[in-house]
Order: sequence, then C-alpha cells, then structure tokens
Amino acid sequence: MNSKRKLIYEGKAKILYEGPEPGTLIQYFKDDATAFNGEKKAQLEGKGVINNRISEFVMTRLNQIGITNHFIKRLNLREQLIREVEIVPLEVVVRNVAAGSIAKRLGLEEGTPLPRSIIEFYYKKDELNDPMVSEEHITAFNWATTQEMDEMLATAIRVNDFLCGMFSAVGITLVDFKIEFGRIYENDFSRVILADEISPDSCRLWDTATGEKLDKDRFRRDMGNVIESYTEVARRLGIMKDMPTVIQGGLH
Amino acid sequence: MNSKRKLIYEGKAKILYEGPEPGTLIQYFKDDATAFNGEKKAQLEGKGVINNRISEFVMTRLNQIGITNHFIKRLNLREQLIREVEIVPLEVVVRNVAAGSIAKRLGLEEGTPLPRSIIEFYYKKDELNDPMVSEEHITAFNWATTQEMDEMLATAIRVNDFLCGMFSAVGITLVDFKIEFGRIYENDFSRVILADEISPDSCRLWDTATGEKLDKDRFRRDMGNVIESYTEVARRLGIMKDMPTVIQGGLH
Repeated sequence: MNSKRKLIYEGKAKILYEGPEPGTLIQYFKDDATAFNGEKKAQLEGKGVINNRISEFVMTRLNQIGITNHFIKRLNLREQLIREVEIVPLEVVVRNVAAGSIAKRLGLEEGTPLPRSIIEFYYKKDELNDPMVSEEHITAFNWATTQEMDEMLATAIRVNDFLCGMFSAVGITLVDFKIEFGRIYENDFSRVILADEISPDSCRLWDTATGEKLDKDRFRRDMGNVIESYTEVARRLGIMKDMPTVIQGGLH
Repeated sequence: MNSKRKLIYEGKAKILYEGPEPGTLIQYFKDDATAFNGEKKAQLEGKGVINNRISEFVMTRLNQIGITNHFIKRLNLREQLIREVEIVPLEVVVRNVAAGSIAKRLGLEEGTPLPRSIIEFYYKKDELNDPMVSEEHITAFNWATTQEMDEMLATAIRVNDFLCGMFSAVGITLVDFKIEFGRIYENDFSRVILADEISPDSCRLWDTATGEKLDKDRFRRDMGNVIESYTEVARRLGIMKDMPTVIQGGLH
C-alpha cells in the first residue's frame, strides 16, 4: 500500500483509494471477515488475496459476455483497479436454493430448491440492519429509478445464469449470491453497472456432491476451515496455480 | 348466533359460518382485539358491532364504484352476508404516511409523508409472523399469479384513492391500511376480489387537526379509549345515528 494515496471509503472487507486517473479507484481487499452486521469479526489470513483473484476471474469473464462492470484490471495481490461509480444503496440477492434469511423468513428448509430463481433487494443501511425492501420502496424513495431497476433485474438474471454455469462446471452449486450496482455518468446520460465483488464472501457455494459449504457461512456459523474452503473454490476455478507459491503455501 | 350452523373458520377478530346459499358465508365480527400476532389480547365491548357497520359502509360504496368485493348485505348487529372466496394468503398494505413497521424498518420518523403511496405485501402465516414479501416471492411460490398481482395492485390503488377521499371529508388522515383479496370462480375463470374487512382494526386513521389516533394503535400501544375512537370514526361517517340506542349508549 502506498500511504500517500487518498482513502475514499473504508468498508468492512474492502478499502477504496483514489485511482491513478479521474474516474478510477483502487479496490483493496482486506482479510477482515465480519458477519451479522459487524457484530462478529475476525481476521482470516489470505482471504483478501483469494477474493481479489476470484472477483477478477468472474468480473473479467462477465465483461467478456457483455455484462459491463467496474473491474478494469488487477494490480497486485490485494488490489484491483476499478471504475469509480456511485453505488446504488441496494444489495441485490439472487437465490436458487433456500438458505439463510429466506429459509427463516418463509419457513423453508435450508437446501430446498426454490420453484424458480428469486431476486430480492435489501436497502444498504447498517443502522437498520439492511432491511429487505421491494420495488415499491426503491422507486418511492428514489434509491433507483424504474429504468435502473429493470437494468439491475436483467443483469442479475444474466449473472445468475453465468455463475450457475461456471460453478456447476466445477462441481459447485450456486445457492445464492449478492451483487451491487453503481451508476456511471457518460455525457448527459447515466446507467448502472455491476460493481463491488463476487467471491465466497458474497455467494453461498455448496459442493454439489457432498453438500459441504465453501463460503462465508463457514465463518458465520463457526464451521472452521474458512480459508481452506475459499481456497478450494479458487483451486477448482484454476486460479490457485496462478498464485505466488508463498501464498499457496500460506493458504494451505 | 344460530348454534346449529356450521363454523367454517375462526380467526382472531371474526368467525365465518356457512351461509344460507352455496357460495355465501356469514361473517361474524367478534369483540376480540389482538395484536403482535396474538400475543396481546383483550375484549373490547362493542368493537365487533362498530367494525361490522364501518366495513358495511365502506364495502357498499366500493361496490358502487365498481370495486367488486365480497360484501352482500349486513344481516344484524354483528353479522354480514358475504360471498365465499378462496383467500389469497397475502396482506396487501397501502401506506401514505410512515407509521408502524415501515417507520422502524426504514428508519423514518412516524408521521413522515411518504414520497408516494407505497404498496407492500405480507405473507399471511402466523408461525412466521407474517413476513414482508415481494412480487418475486409471491409469484415464485404461486401465492398469486402475475395477473392476480396486477389486479390486486390496481384495486389497492383505487381503494386508497377512495378511502383517502372518504376519510379526508371527515377530517381524518388515512395513514395506511391493510386489505385482503379472495379468488372467486365463475365458469372456467377465476378472479380476485376485495374481501375481509375495512375498519379501524385494519387502517391507521389520524385526526387531521390534532394528530390523535383513532385506530387499533390505541390498543397496540395501550393508549386507552379504543372503543371511543372507533365510535368517533363511525360517528363522523354518519353511521352512529343509525345504530340502535342501546348500542349508542353502551358505546359511550
């Protein structure tokens, strides 16, 4: 890290620094793990390195199929160059199988396949514990316009299709995931693009054969082997072979 | 009550009996008041009588403007004849001013006018505390079809317009209300119509001049004068003058 550069925003798992050019930022992946709105905290050595790589892997491929996102290039172990966006204050959750809050809210057994993929929106507001909201709230409070909602919904469905394909190819079931969007301004025109990250921090990933969890639920639920599981996801995606040996050693 | 007739369903505030003809039911209004999913209970003498009248008043007028509903006619002090419907397991809430759960969920001060009327859906399931759901959940789990959702939304907006007009004419602000819908089958065709009740049990009604609450929040929040407030709503709507003197006396 270059201590001279300007910190723009520090979140729970990432830091944003001013980028080298206007309209760019540097996204730094921390090892901090948090859950339950920050009530549970830990340092998981190497998590930032793995998530930087997995997110690079996914975002690069999404860009290639025309799902525009904020990723420009990876800079080093923990940092990537991204486009500066104005974050839409929503978490967009796509669910294929019941797990986590939907299982509890709707009385479904965890692991129940949903009748179809379900998209949910949560208002990003720590003080309120990120409450679930519907399109009615979003458009009424101007958190996003109807047109932006349409774009986010369409993109969320495409990302789900892509990720289902990608993970199924390596024996992983994509149970659900969370994405975020940001506004970019081009001429007199704004649109929303995919932002943030896609990693085992933001997805529920179950080994298809054994049902073993390979995601942040291992941390939330004190299941142990968190980094080993994240590493396993990276390994299956062919990312680990590309890692510096020191990290490979440190992470095993 | 005629003890010979068949009980079809007993809810927290109403009982449904078999009606005199196929496709009809008798809706009996109890004096029972409950809140917080039945945790808080009381008997409020005369509540059933007033709600029967207010609901009759509203449903009759809604029918007149083409908002089809289950109401056929009032039978006596506590009973009305209704069409039998298959209840859609959703509570449809229309909000004009922030109060109750939306104020808490979204961190709004109670009494804040909403930027526009907001429609919310709650899944009717006591065991789950009637969780808020979105159109995504509703259509995925087949609680209602997309077409039924469209009908319910359009009707909810019309009912809100009507009720805003009706209450504003008597110095009352319609903060929010809850309605329910039921399916009726005609030939090979089904559609949803307004059902249940519209009363101070299902609306938040504030005196426009003083802000005084004239609805069930007086019970929920132990504010006292519950029946007096319900009676005041009925009185302003011109319903009380039509009540038997014994009730008028008993309710004051």
